[in-house]
Amino acid sequence: MAGRLDLKHGAVDMSHGSGGRAMAQLIDQLFRKHLDNDLLARGDDQALLAPPAGRLAMSTDGHVISPLFFPGGDIGSLAVHGTVNDVAMCGARPLYLAAGFILEEGLALAELARIVESMAAACNACGVPVVTGDTKVVERGKGDGCFITTTGVGVVPEGLDISGANARPGDAILVSGHIGDHGVAIMSKRENLGFETEIHSDSQALHDLVAAMIDAVPEIHCLRDPTRGGLASTLNELAQQSGVGMQIREPTIPVRPEVAAACELLGLDALNVANEGKLVAICPADQAETLLAAMRGHPKGMDAAIIGEVFEDPHHFVQMETAFGGNRIVDWLAGEQLPRIC
Amino acid sequence: MAGRLDLKHGAVDMSHGSGGRAMAQLIDQLFRKHLDNDLLARGDDQALLAPPAGRLAMSTDGHVISPLFFPGGDIGSLAVHGTVNDVAMCGARPLYLAAGFILEEGLALAELARIVESMAAACNACGVPVVTGDTKVVERGKGDGCFITTTGVGVVPEGLDISGANARPGDAILVSGHIGDHGVAIMSKRENLGFETEIHSDSQALHDLVAAMIDAVPEIHCLRDPTRGGLASTLNELAQQSGVGMQIREPTIPVRPEVAAACELLGLDALNVANEGKLVAICPADQAETLLAAMRGHPKGMDAAIIGEVFEDPHHFVQMETAFGGNRIVDWLAGEQLPRIC
Ligand SMILES: Nc1ncnc2c1ncn2[C@@H]1O[C@H](COP(=O)(O)OP(=O)(O)OP(=O)(O)O)[C@@H](O)[C@H]1O
Ligand SMILES: Nc1ncnc2c1ncn2[C@@H]1O[C@H](COP(=O)(O)OP(=O)(O)OP(=O)(O)O)[C@@H](O)[C@H]1O
Ligand SMILES: [Mg+2]
Ligand SMILES: [Mg+2]
Ligand SMILES: [Mg+2]
Ligand SMILES: [Mg+2]
Ligand SMILES: [Mg+2]
Ligand SMILES: [Mg+2]
Repeated sequence: MAGRLDLKHGAVDMSHGSGGRAMAQLIDQLFRKHLDNDLLARGDDQALLAPPAGRLAMSTDGHVISPLFFPGGDIGSLAVHGTVNDVAMCGARPLYLAAGFILEEGLALAELARIVESMAAACNACGVPVVTGDTKVVERGKGDGCFITTTGVGVVPEGLDISGANARPGDAILVSGHIGDHGVAIMSKRENLGFETEIHSDSQALHDLVAAMIDAVPEIHCLRDPTRGGLASTLNELAQQSGVGMQIREPTIPVRPEVAAACELLGLDALNVANEGKLVAICPADQAETLLAAMRGHPKGMDAAIIGEVFEDPHHFVQMETAFGGNRIVDWLAGEQLPRIC
Repeated sequence: MAGRLDLKHGAVDMSHGSGGRAMAQLIDQLFRKHLDNDLLARGDDQALLAPPAGRLAMSTDGHVISPLFFPGGDIGSLAVHGTVNDVAMCGARPLYLAAGFILEEGLALAELARIVESMAAACNACGVPVVTGDTKVVERGKGDGCFITTTGVGVVPEGLDISGANARPGDAILVSGHIGDHGVAIMSKRENLGFETEIHSDSQALHDLVAAMIDAVPEIHCLRDPTRGGLASTLNELAQQSGVGMQIREPTIPVRPEVAAACELLGLDALNVANEGKLVAICPADQAETLLAAMRGHPKGMDAAIIGEVFEDPHHFVQMETAFGGNRIVDWLAGEQLPRIC
């Protein structure tokens, strides 16, 4: 297959989605080159994987974030972290990823290469390879540069039972660090806010933090990453799924001052803002301090905090004691404040 | 979660991708309703699956076909068939699907419901459920109605070794039926060709045909579905991957007269036209008749044929004896004739 891609000046055109020679070149010279591993190199219609020794976990996420590159990350690394995290949120060890690209005609190959290199770096850092992929191209004006859908599978260690349905009255609610960084980083970039200190996305893989947490407290009841809709929507999801109420305390929720200031300026509630490297954990009250210590002992959980507890409530309300001592209902995000945040 | 979707007059808006209440409603009232199964109903960030008893196969495909509905299928059923087939092309039994939707603002909910209903019907027909999903929304003009990326996992029966790298000189090449139906159905719809008899896509799941073939001839060397790029690109891929040459005979390749006529009119070569319900098989010559009989004994392989054989060739050329007795090189599809065909 002769012909080299012009990675400096070239752009994606419709032939890169044709199933013919141009597509094969793009896959070989760009995707397989960067995402290189034995399983992907096989080049069949499917990857063949060793039989996992236990229950499988499987999760998928489309990524349509705009802009493609942002402070603290880009769509390539985000597409790895996002799916690794969803797989890990039942305690599973993520093993493999599939990646489907939908490219818009005209996307610079240099930009695509940056995205795929970043994806490859994230895969290497997590130890989770892309083992199979797909490349489609749509006409100019029918896409937006690059969408990436990643699907992950992982294996669940024996004995764990972690689910959004498992929160019980009396349980403690923890968060692994500062909330709102990702959403505010994207929005401040979009709105071109002139903050002195740039706010960075928290996009990161949490499977290693989860492994440390499970080691310390195998009885964890729930894990969830508060992505779109933020902490508020995630707590409401968990309350609904478990059929319980929740009480959280505003002053205990870690929010960076820069993020709080940006939220103020943008008219956002930090509780509704997306995170891409944080998790919520719920565990029996008598294990909460042990879990907190395990989280704080890990670099990705340094700023972890206990933020509230679960109680019985037929309405499944999430309530928050505010900084001023009042109490308010924390509702699901309504409408859409932060489009294309992930 | 109060509020009913207006499935008759409603449309997708940005709030359906927010991670908030509107998205939760869309997932509950439309996706979960139709794709209903116990694994999906769990509602966690990942599906939990029983440990498969053997090697896993994993494959992903984005679907960006235009138009969304076409004679013989739609993007919903296609997204199931396409990935089921890629998983099956190593002899695996497909078990589970993940589905990521990227919706364009303004898509009619009634149209989305038709797509998801059709997807659900295809899942039921194949016995392969969607166990986890994702829903993103992009602004008007940044997508094209609906893109669906499906990822499948399956389990590979012990003892099989089917790969595009396994073709050996002397092997026979078979195809499971008429080629070109899918691509011509889409193109004739787009170009509004006024054919008397409408040409239908062959979109269908082939895992059951594959199971019957493996039963008869476990020594099958290669299986591949000739999708984008058509039979010509698939044979070139296999020749390249196995490091062999191929000789096929034009008169033995099944092409419907209507499809041949449409190709003539559209200036297409049927060998380059996409199929979504056909497969190419390569097996030892002395098993070819047994395999052919097994294929013809199955409703999805009724029109199967032996179309050529593998030979040694350092150039990895695919050559074809034409209807007129000449011989020509069958090359990869170059450029792009059939954009957004799947
Ligand atoms: N973006 C990508 N990154 C890594 N590998 C890729 C990528 N796109 C395709 N591949 C790999 O290239 C090979 C061919 O992919 P292709 O999508 O053409 O196969 P297919 O799914 O059988 O065809 P179709 O998509 O037309 O149905 C596969 O091995 C696939 O894993
Ligand atoms: N189109 C869909 N079809 C079926 N199930 C879906 C669909 N979209 C989402 N789901 C299911 O709804 C639940 C919530 O999905 P959601 O995408 O909000 O979770 P997430 O991936 O953790 O969040 P994010 O996408 O913001 O990272 C999951 O159980 C998921 O499987
Ligand atoms: Mg997610
Ligand atoms: Mg999640
Ligand atoms: Mg593909
Ligand atoms: Mg395919
Ligand atoms: Mg295929
Ligand atoms: Mg998701």
